Amino acid sequence: MDFTHSDKAKEYIDRVTSFMDDHVYPAEATYNEQLNASDDRWKIPPVMETLKTKARAAGLWNLFLPDDRFGAGLSVLEYAPLAEITGRSPIAPEVFNCNAPDSGNMETLAMYGTDAQKDRWLNPLLAGDIRSAFLMTEPDVASSDATNVQCSITLEGNATYVINGRKWWSSGAGDPRCEIFIVMGKTDPQAETHKQQSMILVPRDTPGVTVKRPLTVFGYDDAPHGHMEIELKDVRVPAENILLGEGRGFEIAQGRLGPGRIHHCMRSIGTAERALELMTERLISRQVFGKPIAAHSVWEERVANARLEIEMTRLLCLKAAWMMDTVGNKAARKEIALIKIAAPTMALKIIDDAIQAFGGEGVSGDTPLAAMYSWQRCLRLADGPDEVHRRTVARMEFKDAAARTGITLGEKR
Amino acid sequence: MDFTHSDKAKEYIDRVTSFMDDHVYPAEATYNEQLNASDDRWKIPPVMETLKTKARAAGLWNLFLPDDRFGAGLSVLEYAPLAEITGRSPIAPEVFNCNAPDSGNMETLAMYGTDAQKDRWLNPLLAGDIRSAFLMTEPDVASSDATNVQCSITLEGNATYVINGRKWWSSGAGDPRCEIFIVMGKTDPQAETHKQQSMILVPRDTPGVTVKRPLTVFGYDDAPHGHMEIELKDVRVPAENILLGEGRGFEIAQGRLGPGRIHHCMRSIGTAERALELMTERLISRQVFGKPIAAHSVWEERVANARLEIEMTRLLCLKAAWMMDTVGNKAARKEIALIKIAAPTMALKIIDDAIQAFGGEGVSGDTPLAAMYSWQRCLRLADGPDEVHRRTVARMEFKDAAARTGITLGEKR
Amino acid sequence: MDFTHSDKAKEYIDRVTSFMDDHVYPAEATYNEQLNASDDRWKIPPVMETLKTKARAAGLWNLFLPDDRFGAGLSVLEYAPLAEITGRSPIAPEVFNCNAPDSGNMETLAMYGTDAQKDRWLNPLLAGDIRSAFLMTEPDVASSDATNVQCSITLEGNATYVINGRKWWSSGAGDPRCEIFIVMGKTDPQAETHKQQSMILVPRDTPGVTVKRPLTVFGYDDAPHGHMEIELKDVRVPAENILLGEGRGFEIAQGRLGPGRIHHCMRSIGTAERALELMTERLISRQVFGKPIAAHSVWEERVANARLEIEMTRLLCLKAAWMMDTVGNKAARKEIALIKIAAPTMALKIIDDAIQAFGGEGVSGDTPLAAMYSWQRCLRLADGPDEVHRRTVARMEFKDAAARTGITLGEKR
Amino acid sequence: MDFTHSDKAKEYIDRVTSFMDDHVYPAEATYNEQLNASDDRWKIPPVMETLKTKARAAGLWNLFLPDDRFGAGLSVLEYAPLAEITGRSPIAPEVFNCNAPDSGNMETLAMYGTDAQKDRWLNPLLAGDIRSAFLMTEPDVASSDATNVQCSITLEGNATYVINGRKWWSSGAGDPRCEIFIVMGKTDPQAETHKQQSMILVPRDTPGVTVKRPLTVFGYDDAPHGHMEIELKDVRVPAENILLGEGRGFEIAQGRLGPGRIHHCMRSIGTAERALELMTERLISRQVFGKPIAAHSVWEERVANARLEIEMTRLLCLKAAWMMDTVGNKAARKEIALIKIAAPTMALKIIDDAIQAFGGEGVSGDTPLAAMYSWQRCLRLADGPDEVHRRTVARMEFKDAAARTGITLGEKR
Repeated sequence: MDFTHSDKAKEYIDRVTSFMDDHVYPAEATYNEQLNASDDRWKIPPVMETLKTKARAAGLWNLFLPDDRFGAGLSVLEYAPLAEITGRSPIAPEVFNCNAPDSGNMETLAMYGTDAQKDRWLNPLLAGDIRSAFLMTEPDVASSDATNVQCSITLEGNATYVINGRKWWSSGAGDPRCEIFIVMGKTDPQAETHKQQSMILVPRDTPGVTVKRPLTVFGYDDAPHGHMEIELKDVRVPAENILLGEGRGFEIAQGRLGPGRIHHCMRSIGTAERALELMTERLISRQVFGKPIAAHSVWEERVANARLEIEMTRLLCLKAAWMMDTVGNKAARKEIALIKIAAPTMALKIIDDAIQAFGGEGVSGDTPLAAMYSWQRCLRLADGPDEVHRRTVARMEFKDAAARTGITLGEKR
Repeated sequence: MDFTHSDKAKEYIDRVTSFMDDHVYPAEATYNEQLNASDDRWKIPPVMETLKTKARAAGLWNLFLPDDRFGAGLSVLEYAPLAEITGRSPIAPEVFNCNAPDSGNMETLAMYGTDAQKDRWLNPLLAGDIRSAFLMTEPDVASSDATNVQCSITLEGNATYVINGRKWWSSGAGDPRCEIFIVMGKTDPQAETHKQQSMILVPRDTPGVTVKRPLTVFGYDDAPHGHMEIELKDVRVPAENILLGEGRGFEIAQGRLGPGRIHHCMRSIGTAERALELMTERLISRQVFGKPIAAHSVWEERVANARLEIEMTRLLCLKAAWMMDTVGNKAARKEIALIKIAAPTMALKIIDDAIQAFGGEGVSGDTPLAAMYSWQRCLRLADGPDEVHRRTVARMEFKDAAARTGITLGEKR
Repeated sequence: MDFTHSDKAKEYIDRVTSFMDDHVYPAEATYNEQLNASDDRWKIPPVMETLKTKARAAGLWNLFLPDDRFGAGLSVLEYAPLAEITGRSPIAPEVFNCNAPDSGNMETLAMYGTDAQKDRWLNPLLAGDIRSAFLMTEPDVASSDATNVQCSITLEGNATYVINGRKWWSSGAGDPRCEIFIVMGKTDPQAETHKQQSMILVPRDTPGVTVKRPLTVFGYDDAPHGHMEIELKDVRVPAENILLGEGRGFEIAQGRLGPGRIHHCMRSIGTAERALELMTERLISRQVFGKPIAAHSVWEERVANARLEIEMTRLLCLKAAWMMDTVGNKAARKEIALIKIAAPTMALKIIDDAIQAFGGEGVSGDTPLAAMYSWQRCLRLADGPDEVHRRTVARMEFKDAAARTGITLGEKR
Repeated sequence: MDFTHSDKAKEYIDRVTSFMDDHVYPAEATYNEQLNASDDRWKIPPVMETLKTKARAAGLWNLFLPDDRFGAGLSVLEYAPLAEITGRSPIAPEVFNCNAPDSGNMETLAMYGTDAQKDRWLNPLLAGDIRSAFLMTEPDVASSDATNVQCSITLEGNATYVINGRKWWSSGAGDPRCEIFIVMGKTDPQAETHKQQSMILVPRDTPGVTVKRPLTVFGYDDAPHGHMEIELKDVRVPAENILLGEGRGFEIAQGRLGPGRIHHCMRSIGTAERALELMTERLISRQVFGKPIAAHSVWEERVANARLEIEMTRLLCLKAAWMMDTVGNKAARKEIALIKIAAPTMALKIIDDAIQAFGGEGVSGDTPLAAMYSWQRCLRLADGPDEVHRRTVARMEFKDAAARTGITLGEKR
């Protein structure tokens, strides 16, 4: 288990750090001002495109993509510290073209797309010219159980699929640049449980597609990207839009979810690190009852625990990354589940303490803390709620115990 | 310790419950629709005035006011179940003219106002015709230590006070009907610590008053009431606007904070109760892994703990109320501090679990949960953060221990 | 809901408090010295019988028994503060003849015993002359599910029952004065689930009864009472030893468990209160880093939370007691389950913090804290583990939710 | 950061694992039987010497000692997995001559001892022929603040030190083979704070030394080693018994505490791992409510969290070890403090859950869980309580924040 930064990683860390200091942090306020000044919240603040141009020129672009034909060709372990740094600022991931769900969609297309699909959709995504969404979650079923998906994808003749369903939490679908959806649905409800699902490419402007409304996250609309509710009514796309083939949806989901989950976790660590910075800076600079708040030991406890949790979570994230690189996503399944449980919960606790340190300012828009909290809270639900990942881990532990002891678990389980 | 509902209380419980069922719950969606449909979020949705008229006609009005010359004449214990019921809906407290900070401001005026002050400001507040704000918290100091207040109130000649300062978290000051502020400031920074502060009445339209902007709470602007930042620059008011006299500000704050805190706690319990209702209803109605989510024991744990925490917190709230009624707010200081610590933390945990039960819908605007969470989180900071109340309680315990043992605590403490 | 102490209760509170101060606390050290000085740990330290004689003479005897033919005739609510006081000292419950499992056994005999059974066993128990044990838990099955009981009680001819089984956690069975066991077993494994079990009286000296060994609780043997493992091999008792009749075992268990559980909870509150006293006294009397430990705010947090948890738990306990008195044990089932979950967990947290305050001394025998902790930990398992009580509560909540919404829960639950 | 096992470490892991399987686990029961069968609990069960002989013959001896003149010459990182494995069994550390406090005492002598001191005491300790104790903690002061030490070491003439003081928690001093004490005391109470203390060698049989009594840990006497209270009354030793020189006591303490603390943490991880094994094996093998307990999701949560906490704590432990190897104990101070906070708390939670899984058996002597719990609870106090380590970490964070922001922390801190 070797977490040593490669020379390549080290160099990227320096460059991304400098870029954040020079360009991203100073632009945070501008971004919000431009967004709030506009009479249309669903327009991209101009500073974003400026930053993207700079990042691309600086060679800090598509860092997440391990396939060096398309991206930086970094291993998961090499990308980890970079993703962490981008997690420190809500606007950073997009600046480097590394934001979800586009990163996952690009990875999906890079891995499973045909050449034609790559030409048409991957290339403009890699260039940052268009955006995409991933339509998986549905309003009427418990999405924590992926087999509950109800959206139907039906072959009509030989050449057309007809899609009907209702999706929500389609993040990024509110973005005016969003042009393509990857839609998960069922092609064969009679097939075995994990062969019923398929993924298919649906251009946003296809007739029958209606982006109904943005969902809010706490009170945030997360404009201009948004988390949208989308109706798919008799949506017709060419048969070649299917990804990988019918019945391969679950397999693709598995393939994309590993990297997607760990990227979120890496960023959560950066978010937590920034919250801790803000908290400690606040605590040393205010007085209560005749001494700096930092000198009150209840805050020593919270700050020390924050550092402890960040350190441990980062190490676990590195281990999961290292395993994905060395033994593959499937063998790293337990570690990915573990980090997915750990990272947002860790970040939430630290941000919450930071909010308490700031008092009213902490819940307001004057610090990034409340927005950070809201987003991290979503991450305990997105890509599988904690309960599902705990189930995964526990079942592996029980299986090990059964193997050690020879006890056969009853069929009822 | 007798928590038995009086006949009067029982009758009010029935009437408020019916009114909630018949009028308030059905109007929640309307209120939000009217608010969101308006091109000005700082306008009162018409349904609110309709509801207020109905509530007043039904005799469900100013229930919080123990002085029966002005309000319902209920004891704190009698009011507790009513406040709890209104805590179930975000729009309910205003419907019954029992919402903060107007309720605290009315109580302050009723207790400490001159007849002229009552005529001019208390009467229209009691009628629900105008609204008010309480300007205490300041942006540049740790407000958890009340002696940090910096706003100055200076006598100019004999007849005028000049006020200079910056306030924020002035809740309700965004309301178009808000006409009067109660402002906390320092009249004599050289006086002994708790005699430096005074409270003074400042009409909102006084020159020098600038309502700068609304603060957000986890992305919510809480329009049309709002939590405002306010600049007071050479604001001049007649000397008779002072409340009770110079140097009495801390005393008035103590007087108003007891009832104010417990009213928040009562409503937190109602909020938690509704979150638990929503959670259980969701859990029995969705399936994962082949059975209702309710049949997964991890949810048994959360639901049982929720019921436990609600029960215990309600009982503590009743005890604090009963003590306020029987031995007075000062003797109930420990109990008020305890319930202030307990109630929002309890509610937050339950709402958070309810959010988890709902998945993405839980953080969205489609359930009231995320808004409930945001507000309860504020209540861990408002009217003194948890840390200050814990300090109050602990010091009383240490004092008891010192009395038992004869140990003298060192001066250093 | 009226928790006012009756005059009778008040008078008893004063008398028990005085008796504790005058006789019990001063004897704690003596009891331990006599126990440790003896070469046989399974002998009663003489000071215990002295204390019992005094308590009986003072009329502080069998306070737990609501039936005034046998005991003090106090309601559950009246007994609550008395049991709490006895929970402050590990030796106190026996002094007042109110200790488990004798109290539960006496109550069982008083409620369900025949006159002959009462004459033979209840009277000497009431007099404190003999002791008893309750043989329910078994080593080979999960006792949290009462239907798992395996011990067999088989009728042989008309006049004799033959009992075979293995029991453990038979508390008090190590006591040299222990003469009678109440044994739970199955008379009819084919009957419906809750009619299979019966309870039967087994004198300890019956052939076939072997008290195998004491179980330890952490490192404590809890001599001279002990928690024993007992073998029952072809144990023959007269048919009239059955309690209430065949198949009534579950019913009797329900009847005795309500009071038994709440008595433990009352005592847990007293234990917690004493731990808090010890903790605060320690914190004000030691210095670290130049000031009393009490002045370090991390301890303010723990002490305030301790007071909060004690207050809330006590109130819940009083509510459960009041309900048992007013609507009966069955209708109070949810409240009994809630307090059973709450009380030991609350006590454990406070004792653990007190241990931390004491440092090494806290885990040693020089304070009562470690022994308190060990016993409270058992109470999270005894009379049903937390999980079972949470299940009870949650299912009642889900049932309410189903009633509110009309949703029918699937059979699978 | 490279945690890859060296070939040497890998080989040792295999050998220690095999030795545990072949010899140690099977001897656990024997050890307890021999201890309990003896009429003197302060005699070494013969199986221990047999195991030691085997371990030494197998070359699995003094693995902890990085100095290859005396021990295995392993780095801290290499030793980590071995210490973890020995932490799985309470008897294992001694078998490999790696148990506290002998390991720390040997390391102290190896690093700071004169040749004569090494000949006389280090060699027989290395051979496992004698045992030692470390007399630091005192009953009358808060030992969490090391400057509170009161034991006096006074030069009498040129050649003799006279020692007076009272110590407790002198672990291992009850061992019949214990021959030497390292005593911490003050040689110069007027010197600057961290130069007042010295360490000195005191043979156990020196006149004036009285081993008063064993302290218990949750009822356990931890015989035959024991945690002893010791009186030092006019104890005279030759001046050359001083370690390193007068005023160097604090420095030596710092030197020994780093490795000592991390060794405890490594073993805590092994303990937690074994508790998790026991828990999962139990959960799959018992049924409640018609299915294996493992199928109840509340246990999925606990098991998954256990795995998560073990993984994260182990990684942090490896990081601290790696830093000690690469940048030294001083530069690793924060990481050592962090792991010292994390490891026992993590283990306690997992053991507590395992106890709950086992029911009554969990608190008894029939599983190792209760003893594990008791010992891990001590480790939250030993070598500095959590609060002190949190203070260390927090102050480093606040210092970083001050450096980042240029804010000067007030003198009052």
